[in-house]
Amino acid sequence: MSGDSVVNSEVADMVGDWKGYVEAKLGFRNHWYPVRFSNELTEGQLQVVEILGERLLIKRIDGKVYAMRDRCLHRGVPLSQKPDCFTKDTITCWYHGYTYRFQTGDLVNILAVPDSRLIGRRKIVTYPVEEAKGLIFIFLGDEEMIHPLHRDVPPGFLDENLMVLGKHRVVESNWRLGAENGFDGLHIFIHKDTTLRHYRTFNFPIGHTPRAGAVQTVEEEDGPKGVTDDFSQHDPVWDGVIDGKVVISGPRSTQVQGTSASVGTSIWMPGVLKVDSFPNPGLTQFEWYVPLDAKRHLYVQTIGKPVETEEDRAAFASDFEAVWKPHGLDGFNADDIWAREVTEPFYADDYGWVDEMLCEPDSTLVEWRKLASRHGRGIQTPSHLR
Amino acid sequence: MSGDSVVNSEVADMVGDWKGYVEAKLGFRNHWYPVRFSNELTEGQLQVVEILGERLLIKRIDGKVYAMRDRCLHRGVPLSQKPDCFTKDTITCWYHGYTYRFQTGDLVNILAVPDSRLIGRRKIVTYPVEEAKGLIFIFLGDEEMIHPLHRDVPPGFLDENLMVLGKHRVVESNWRLGAENGFDGLHIFIHKDTTLRHYRTFNFPIGHTPRAGAVQTVEEEDGPKGVTDDFSQHDPVWDGVIDGKVVISGPRSTQVQGTSASVGTSIWMPGVLKVDSFPNPGLTQFEWYVPLDAKRHLYVQTIGKPVETEEDRAAFASDFEAVWKPHGLDGFNADDIWAREVTEPFYADDYGWVDEMLCEPDSTLVEWRKLASRHGRGIQTPSHLR
Amino acid sequence: MSGDSVVNSEVADMVGDWKGYVEAKLGFRNHWYPVRFSNELTEGQLQVVEILGERLLIKRIDGKVYAMRDRCLHRGVPLSQKPDCFTKDTITCWYHGYTYRFQTGDLVNILAVPDSRLIGRRKIVTYPVEEAKGLIFIFLGDEEMIHPLHRDVPPGFLDENLMVLGKHRVVESNWRLGAENGFDGLHIFIHKDTTLRHYRTFNFPIGHTPRAGAVQTVEEEDGPKGVTDDFSQHDPVWDGVIDGKVVISGPRSTQVQGTSASVGTSIWMPGVLKVDSFPNPGLTQFEWYVPLDAKRHLYVQTIGKPVETEEDRAAFASDFEAVWKPHGLDGFNADDIWAREVTEPFYADDYGWVDEMLCEPDSTLVEWRKLASRHGRGIQTPSHLR
Repeated sequence: MSGDSVVNSEVADMVGDWKGYVEAKLGFRNHWYPVRFSNELTEGQLQVVEILGERLLIKRIDGKVYAMRDRCLHRGVPLSQKPDCFTKDTITCWYHGYTYRFQTGDLVNILAVPDSRLIGRRKIVTYPVEEAKGLIFIFLGDEEMIHPLHRDVPPGFLDENLMVLGKHRVVESNWRLGAENGFDGLHIFIHKDTTLRHYRTFNFPIGHTPRAGAVQTVEEEDGPKGVTDDFSQHDPVWDGVIDGKVVISGPRSTQVQGTSASVGTSIWMPGVLKVDSFPNPGLTQFEWYVPLDAKRHLYVQTIGKPVETEEDRAAFASDFEAVWKPHGLDGFNADDIWAREVTEPFYADDYGWVDEMLCEPDSTLVEWRKLASRHGRGIQTPSHLR
Repeated sequence: MSGDSVVNSEVADMVGDWKGYVEAKLGFRNHWYPVRFSNELTEGQLQVVEILGERLLIKRIDGKVYAMRDRCLHRGVPLSQKPDCFTKDTITCWYHGYTYRFQTGDLVNILAVPDSRLIGRRKIVTYPVEEAKGLIFIFLGDEEMIHPLHRDVPPGFLDENLMVLGKHRVVESNWRLGAENGFDGLHIFIHKDTTLRHYRTFNFPIGHTPRAGAVQTVEEEDGPKGVTDDFSQHDPVWDGVIDGKVVISGPRSTQVQGTSASVGTSIWMPGVLKVDSFPNPGLTQFEWYVPLDAKRHLYVQTIGKPVETEEDRAAFASDFEAVWKPHGLDGFNADDIWAREVTEPFYADDYGWVDEMLCEPDSTLVEWRKLASRHGRGIQTPSHLR
Repeated sequence: MSGDSVVNSEVADMVGDWKGYVEAKLGFRNHWYPVRFSNELTEGQLQVVEILGERLLIKRIDGKVYAMRDRCLHRGVPLSQKPDCFTKDTITCWYHGYTYRFQTGDLVNILAVPDSRLIGRRKIVTYPVEEAKGLIFIFLGDEEMIHPLHRDVPPGFLDENLMVLGKHRVVESNWRLGAENGFDGLHIFIHKDTTLRHYRTFNFPIGHTPRAGAVQTVEEEDGPKGVTDDFSQHDPVWDGVIDGKVVISGPRSTQVQGTSASVGTSIWMPGVLKVDSFPNPGLTQFEWYVPLDAKRHLYVQTIGKPVETEEDRAAFASDFEAVWKPHGLDGFNADDIWAREVTEPFYADDYGWVDEMLCEPDSTLVEWRKLASRHGRGIQTPSHLR
């Protein structure tokens, strides 16, 4: 480890044009990340969230959400341990009375030392917050580096008529193993027994390899940066063969075959997956792998559907609860969560990044690693946590 | 960390004239520390105690207490794991029979190798022990550095007619966070809801700031070294104000107002607090923050009262059990214990000592840090533990 | 720690001619180690075993046992987490379909990428396996370094008419503390209360010191390398004396005295103890301290007896279950297991090897440390685990 890194520098120096990705073990700084659903934070409510190794307080005041570091400037204690909110806009440290304004981070008083010269001259760290599509996003970085939210979400996510529903949970792996598990076209091998196949057209090959041209990078100045993988330009493999004998075949749906829609996945900075026509044609899955610390990420899973009417909204909400959440986000994705957690130990000391043995279709992952290294706006380091 | 330190040397180099205090994460060596109450160790009894990262055996033999390192010289096993005390004065290692005399530490025999040249020529580490005011004190250091006990306890503690009662418990924080929590005049903010106010005159401001002259250092050659803070020379703050509005006021006692006695706190080497007229006029609280290791201290809480007669003694013992122990040492100080434990993470990697943001009244703490750096008789380091 | 070691290099540099032994915290590479009894692995069964810090899969196929590293080459996940054995000879990784042949380690297919250039050109690590005397031995090392099994077991263990029975358990100490506990003649002090004395002639002194000539090294080119200690050339100590008073005496058996057989212990590379005439005349105890990782070893305990007839076999099997296993391997050796675990902390940071204070009879241990340093065929290091 170098002085201000959580990453083995020997490893980082061996990976060439994706060094930044290896260094971003705690995530890329100066990007927007979702931390909660809007309906999880009611007016006046206070919550603690973790993100990129930092511990933050979020509070909704007069409808708007604010984010402040959950650590008093004075002696470093968490304000949340015994939150004294004597006014709507402020929080007072339970230990010695340091009082901060949520909207600005200003130290507005020290209750017991009302004439301290620190008052009005010191600020606690705060971060910009936006809400979109029912998610609370925090810009985890430095105000002068701020970019508009639309550059940090996949294309289409902010579409006006898109209705978004979802859930989140903590996964015990580094965020990059989440991102790569999701974008990796080969990993469908682990989903061969999913119950989801009883609820949709589910003719999955056991694997599929991108032909030339299937994988593209998207790097427009004012848009999101990502790598797209078009499954219609893949060569599928339906049967697994060992020693000349077919030992396994891709699962087929028990449902009537629907019309084929465009399918494919794409991964976007700072670590968001978009899966077209999934878990069913007409739906799109968007999912985030938000770094909590070096070993855990918040898996924010959402499904979006274009809706026009209240009936559309009600129907989607009903289907989401009855089918897509239990059989998709819970059932199908449980395989993914397990795979990430089991992969974590190999990469925990960073040597996995050089000891792994990738095969040809994994070139899509390398494209993503290189793109992330080019477009990450900063590496989160231990000194940011102090 | 440098080779023989548990402290980040970058931090130690940044704090100027209180470097020794930052280095003393494991405590100051060559001082007297209380480890148990006398009545906890009966004749012939053996106990294991920890202190400054060392693990010791204490035993009472013919009334006198001895302290010896609990680790056989031979293969390093704890003697206490299966104590073989074949004679009153010795302990024999259960593994190979190395036998040590408690009074001197001499290796007096190896039962299975009675003619070994090691016998009579090797010693296990022992430390001087004294008992005073019902406490067992160990001089944790090197015999040639020994100082008399009265230099390591607060003034008045050894007064002949002072009766002392108390308790102890393990607190999960570094000892310095205990010492600073106790001496810090501002922290009374956390005691605003204490049940103790129903049992005594309790007109606490929410804060109070020392005027010039309130804080003094005491550094006489043959006496204890400390910093005193006279509360009668403080400016109190009774009301906490945010955005021009009073949001909280200092708690008032439900008891009839007594006559005002001199109040104030003082902190003494090697980490002992004296609180005058507390928890009530006529009483004095003395409390130690004895380093157990880098992350824990033994909180030895005592209350002293001058007594003349057996009736005085019985009355104080009764009040102690009925009021001062449950509402003071247990109730009131529970707030302090909790505060120390919650503060620990910020200082655990030492960066807290430079990242903290002290305010004006905290200058009393800086005085203490500097005094401790001047008068600490040695820094406990990992090589002392080997 | 140096870059590729788990051992403090300062310590390793201080011990002169047994440096290799101190470095071999994870064990000596390129030796044979027992991992399971043959009857614990039935035809077709798969098991995970640890050895020298590595995690291996063993499987019995058509009667023969194979050993393969339990970590997919691709993304480093354990194959055993969800073992997909589509054919008898292969295992397929559950994540992306990498398929390996047990007999060779060859990557024989990637189910989803059947035309990958990796196929047939990459191998997972495999190790040679042999079975003897009802134990499965793995040669943990590099094929070009392989030696015949008879060089890595004590003399007599492979004798044709020797019947061997035993058990194994995990002990929470480094393997060397196991080896030294077993070979150390002085440690009989801890067995003074064993129930085993009710089942055999058991006149143990409390200690005994080898005379000149009792200890010999055996270093023939084509045989096992070891140190032998002949107890018939020892001076016994029957009484322990402190301050001129006998405080303890060696335990005497409650059984009728039998004829005295040759007794003694010997320790062999890579860490196997042989105890002659133990737990009773006519029996020999062989026991291995197989490194699992730096802090644990597999204690493989066996007792051998020469047998001629089926009646002999049945009688030994019955005695083993009724007496030698419960009172010897379980009861008597429980004292040893406990002693090793309690010794572990002193040696965990390696300083124990220089801070210990050996006495004269411990020269037998130093002989062993030097012999092991001369004949160990390689030091297991962290880079071997990657």
